[in-house]
Amino acid sequence: MTHKIAVYRRARFNAAHRLYCKDWSFEKNEEVFGKCNNPHFHGHNYSLEVKLIGEIDPVTGFLIDLNELREIIREEVEERFDHKNLNLDCEEFADLNPTVENITVVIYNILRKRLDRDKYEISVRLYETENNYAEYPI
Amino acid sequence: MTHKIAVYRRARFNAAHRLYCKDWSFEKNEEVFGKCNNPHFHGHNYSLEVKLIGEIDPVTGFLIDLNELREIIREEVEERFDHKNLNLDCEEFADLNPTVENITVVIYNILRKRLDRDKYEISVRLYETENNYAEYPI
Amino acid sequence: MTHKIAVYRRARFNAAHRLYCKDWSFEKNEEVFGKCNNPHFHGHNYSLEVKLIGEIDPVTGFLIDLNELREIIREEVEERFDHKNLNLDCEEFADLNPTVENITVVIYNILRKRLDRDKYEISVRLYETENNYAEYPI
Amino acid sequence: MTHKIAVYRRARFNAAHRLYCKDWSFEKNEEVFGKCNNPHFHGHNYSLEVKLIGEIDPVTGFLIDLNELREIIREEVEERFDHKNLNLDCEEFADLNPTVENITVVIYNILRKRLDRDKYEISVRLYETENNYAEYPI
Amino acid sequence: MTHKIAVYRRARFNAAHRLYCKDWSFEKNEEVFGKCNNPHFHGHNYSLEVKLIGEIDPVTGFLIDLNELREIIREEVEERFDHKNLNLDCEEFADLNPTVENITVVIYNILRKRLDRDKYEISVRLYETENNYAEYPI
Amino acid sequence: MTHKIAVYRRARFNAAHRLYCKDWSFEKNEEVFGKCNNPHFHGHNYSLEVKLIGEIDPVTGFLIDLNELREIIREEVEERFDHKNLNLDCEEFADLNPTVENITVVIYNILRKRLDRDKYEISVRLYETENNYAEYPI
Repeated sequence: MTHKIAVYRRARFNAAHRLYCKDWSFEKNEEVFGKCNNPHFHGHNYSLEVKLIGEIDPVTGFLIDLNELREIIREEVEERFDHKNLNLDCEEFADLNPTVENITVVIYNILRKRLDRDKYEISVRLYETENNYAEYPI
Repeated sequence: MTHKIAVYRRARFNAAHRLYCKDWSFEKNEEVFGKCNNPHFHGHNYSLEVKLIGEIDPVTGFLIDLNELREIIREEVEERFDHKNLNLDCEEFADLNPTVENITVVIYNILRKRLDRDKYEISVRLYETENNYAEYPI
Repeated sequence: MTHKIAVYRRARFNAAHRLYCKDWSFEKNEEVFGKCNNPHFHGHNYSLEVKLIGEIDPVTGFLIDLNELREIIREEVEERFDHKNLNLDCEEFADLNPTVENITVVIYNILRKRLDRDKYEISVRLYETENNYAEYPI
Repeated sequence: MTHKIAVYRRARFNAAHRLYCKDWSFEKNEEVFGKCNNPHFHGHNYSLEVKLIGEIDPVTGFLIDLNELREIIREEVEERFDHKNLNLDCEEFADLNPTVENITVVIYNILRKRLDRDKYEISVRLYETENNYAEYPI
Repeated sequence: MTHKIAVYRRARFNAAHRLYCKDWSFEKNEEVFGKCNNPHFHGHNYSLEVKLIGEIDPVTGFLIDLNELREIIREEVEERFDHKNLNLDCEEFADLNPTVENITVVIYNILRKRLDRDKYEISVRLYETENNYAEYPI
Repeated sequence: MTHKIAVYRRARFNAAHRLYCKDWSFEKNEEVFGKCNNPHFHGHNYSLEVKLIGEIDPVTGFLIDLNELREIIREEVEERFDHKNLNLDCEEFADLNPTVENITVVIYNILRKRLDRDKYEISVRLYETENNYAEYPI
């Protein structure tokens, strides 16, 4: 019998973004996205929680070495998105509106490739502000 | 194939309440509810997290427009409970002890009616203090 | 030559209150205090920071034994105000509107009497919510 | 004899910015401002604390009506800076680098004009991240 | 038909620990555990969240009396681990590396024995720092 | 005329310590320091705020480059104290009880030497827990 445990690691990045649909008029974008549609962008301090589920290694007592997980998040998320304009600097959002929902799914997909599927289930929670956040998958 | 995501929205309200059972003597209420049974009431800064689960709209990148969700919570929860006495001002607690558990269920039931069942599963977490909170449903 | 240091201790209490002036009409109170004038009261989780200034004891390395300070705050503030109705249960506010400013001054005056004036300057900060707080003296 | 008290009010705004000196080469800007010099901007959730010092009104128990202060901050700071690009959208930073220091001074100067100098001393603290913040004046 | 609810209670303890495997050389421990292998120990402010799932008592409105839960956590966790050296003072870790994962499982097992299995499912989340935490069971 | 501004930078370190006076008996130490006198040590997540006061450089808009300040804090405080036993590993506390007061003064003295006295006044706040902290100088 095995026992599943979860470990979590938090990280942060600060980025600019704009919400809009390329196929819509400016007026339609204003109606749907309001001040988030500012063509000059606005920004956020994003706070990320990565959750891994798996089994504790009986020798080390680790599910994963949290320093290793920290480095993976630094390389894959912080270096990619910190102090960036998500719309202009990040190919992931070239054709994808950088809502908190979509950024969360993008980060999940990036991290999923770097973390062994046989050992770890993962999920991602992303805070855009202290009041708004998303989680994927459910 | 579809992928479920969750979005969360936080809100706050400040209210007075008293814990007691109408059918019990004052002594029995003191025994069970202690200082929470103060007949003159005490109060809390309640902090609410509403969780919605569903699918991202591929055009907008939204599960729900968070401004719309904020307005629903403002109308249904903040206007109803903020700066109120839960026992005396709120019919929901005319015959229901306003424990953190019961307030959480009441808020869930109110919001459930306002949010489309076909699109969104929902749950509610309510913090009475930073150390005590409840979540419904599980 | 001596060197001043400050130590801080935080505590919490949960209370009900109502803002109003006895000498005013209900309408005037509504105009000035709005929903804070609810005759059935509302409430808050108050968070208190007590600051002491003085000199470090060279033997213990303490400005004050923080356990002793914690006990003084528990006796003088928490037992007095926690789970109370400030207007109805607390003689300090029998003739004083329990605004965050006035509660702060009252707590300062209570603690000032318990803490040696020759050894400690003190001040008090009181959070009514995470957005509203007061500090006394300045 | 009078007694000075302080009250504080917190607010938040989310904005994009870029740090650079117009008179410098891109290379010099990179050297000094690093990733903060991204020409496409990045952004932050700014958190603001406004401190007012003065005397309690003996009738109301208020230093200031905190709802009035909240409205002044909303009008003067949130409407001006929230969901804006500080460099491109805000004339205050047309010729001023929007460092956390300069934004803090700008907000102080704006609020100073709106709040009665005879009644209130004021100061401003601005958090750019949870680790970096500024305060003015000292 | 019954409805499951969860209640949560937070507590804190401060402890010293060292991460290492007795069967490994010092060099191997350094390689795997890095500065956490300091033979003189380091320490943390641990923050614990205990989650109980069950049904609300229709008379009291409680899932559990949170004061009772607080006392159980105080007796079983705080008295056992607060201001202790987990490696040297706590028999639970005599042969078990006190990683955040293992401490979480140990606390779960201790609390599981004290809380009625027929009434409550439980799980435990333990924060070692604000960035690293674990949860058990999943 | 010049205008003083303050900037703040936060950092963290995790350490073990024990409170006791070498010149006292174990019983006397128990009486004064209680469970903090555990001979096997306990530990904390320390959170540090460093405040610099000076004038804004009119060209850069900086009081100090916060990355430079972050590096100084990392070198002088984090590398020195993080994951250390303050009593056994740190010469600063060879003959000084590592109370929160004394650690605060020690960090102030270390940083004072590294930061230009002609440009910057400094002070230091150190949180031992969320409820206990010290500040120096005053």
